[in-house]
Amino acid sequence: MIYIGVDIGGTSIKTGFVNEQGQIISRFVIKIIKGEEQVATIKKIGEAINQHIKEHDYQDIVGIGIGCPGAINSTSGYCDYSPNLKWEHLDVCGILSEVCHLKVKIANDANAAVLGEVKFGIAKNYRHVVMLTLGTGVGGGLYLDDKLYEGNEGKGAELGHSLLEYNGRLCGCGKRGCLEAYASATALINDTKKAMMENTQTAMWDYVNHDIDQVDGKTAFETAKKGDVIAKKVVEQYINYLSAGILSFCNIFRPEAVILGGGICAQKDYLIKPIEQILKQQNYGIKNTPEVKILVAKLGNDAGILGAAALLFE
Amino acid sequence: MIYIGVDIGGTSIKTGFVNEQGQIISRFVIKIIKGEEQVATIKKIGEAINQHIKEHDYQDIVGIGIGCPGAINSTSGYCDYSPNLKWEHLDVCGILSEVCHLKVKIANDANAAVLGEVKFGIAKNYRHVVMLTLGTGVGGGLYLDDKLYEGNEGKGAELGHSLLEYNGRLCGCGKRGCLEAYASATALINDTKKAMMENTQTAMWDYVNHDIDQVDGKTAFETAKKGDVIAKKVVEQYINYLSAGILSFCNIFRPEAVILGGGICAQKDYLIKPIEQILKQQNYGIKNTPEVKILVAKLGNDAGILGAAALLFE
Repeated sequence: MIYIGVDIGGTSIKTGFVNEQGQIISRFVIKIIKGEEQVATIKKIGEAINQHIKEHDYQDIVGIGIGCPGAINSTSGYCDYSPNLKWEHLDVCGILSEVCHLKVKIANDANAAVLGEVKFGIAKNYRHVVMLTLGTGVGGGLYLDDKLYEGNEGKGAELGHSLLEYNGRLCGCGKRGCLEAYASATALINDTKKAMMENTQTAMWDYVNHDIDQVDGKTAFETAKKGDVIAKKVVEQYINYLSAGILSFCNIFRPEAVILGGGICAQKDYLIKPIEQILKQQNYGIKNTPEVKILVAKLGNDAGILGAAALLFE
Repeated sequence: MIYIGVDIGGTSIKTGFVNEQGQIISRFVIKIIKGEEQVATIKKIGEAINQHIKEHDYQDIVGIGIGCPGAINSTSGYCDYSPNLKWEHLDVCGILSEVCHLKVKIANDANAAVLGEVKFGIAKNYRHVVMLTLGTGVGGGLYLDDKLYEGNEGKGAELGHSLLEYNGRLCGCGKRGCLEAYASATALINDTKKAMMENTQTAMWDYVNHDIDQVDGKTAFETAKKGDVIAKKVVEQYINYLSAGILSFCNIFRPEAVILGGGICAQKDYLIKPIEQILKQQNYGIKNTPEVKILVAKLGNDAGILGAAALLFE
């Protein structure tokens, strides 16, 4: 059996043909052409899939799974709105199934990602998993009671927009105090820059060759490892914010594991161990509750394709 | 078919015999004797149930459902810890099934409550529901994808201990900033008292006959209705806190409805309308997401029995 996973990104669309073991046996990439009519883009994906199937003479195809950024209605199969792609009210599943004559399922890309980790990645055999992807924003995915949880119209699991601080920092969504405004890579970069502006002596300036535009999600972590006090404070504050958010999800969901994804996770134990320490100190939320594992996402660059393909296992 | 619902409270245990329409056809109450050995209490409930079945000559009994306060492991059937009852590691389901020879299911009482509202109350036919019970604390219940969600070992849905304010007010659980510390009836009473101490002229003093110990969850609401500015501020602040928590749950779960329970809900529209207004202003969390209904729990005093009985419908 072959499962087709389509990972729609901001600049390109990656398609992978996945076997039952979660191996990608072949793949192709289509560049997204800015300004292209949205229906035409979807048709083009469909035609490329048809051609790829023909070329490889694939049989026993289960269907097509799609992970797409934005507001996705997994029930209707529509991309209701995707600001980066400038797609709106787009019947992705309808168009693709008409072109390919295959079953088509779609989900928000962060929702698909948790499913990929559960089916093929770090969280195999877990029943309750919360996933946070720490990137430009904070993406959220929920796998609850052995099932992807997406909420009404597939619009749930916006964990980055859960509350961290009442009336707190302004978030990109327009509200105040969202977790995303404290725990995204963007927030870490902003906090790093702020600390550098306030402390001209910190070694973080050397790390970025005295060019503040070179600050990224590694700057504070890597400089902290060398003992810089200001960098350590930035990292500590970041971990405290993230841990507070995770603790809240422990109480809300009592998952078996929280998976962290995104570039910051390259810090591995340097990020994970302090979070585990904070959770232990605080009894994982409330007393008499089971431990929650903190795991790092495993699927890396193929997470999008594998998550999308995993939708067909549901 | 008859479903037995057992509602374990702080001072008494209410048992109801419920038909398929959710009507309680007979019932009895047992007082909890302080200091009684915990196993003896459960055996006594079982024997009383047996006797009641015999007296009424009930046939076709599906089983016994139990709603119990504290940390309940719904999988093992144990009450792991209930601080008010002083029960610990108590095999409630095992003991009861031995005495009654019936199928026995147990859940945390707040979890059972949401199930009661979905099966018999205000939220019939809803698929995704979040319930908050605003009392001494803030109890939480989650009904997701047509199913009660309890989390690992049944220890999830502690929505009162989700985060409202990073490093905020000290909560009874020992952590800081929990929703419960802002949105429980206890929090409202504390905020009311604080406002009264700071404002000797507020009409709230007249409402409680100048006795601050008479302040309850109604004091601010009832005085605000008469136009008192300070009372209005207390109510507004309380509603803002509660709405912020609800908004966060909208983004996390994107439920079809949030049910509010507890004494404060007697305020009905005076509580609900401003919350709906805030949710509308804020797009129910993020853009392009479906509306979330705010409902008031309907089952009242029988919610405990009906929620417990509803466990057998799962």
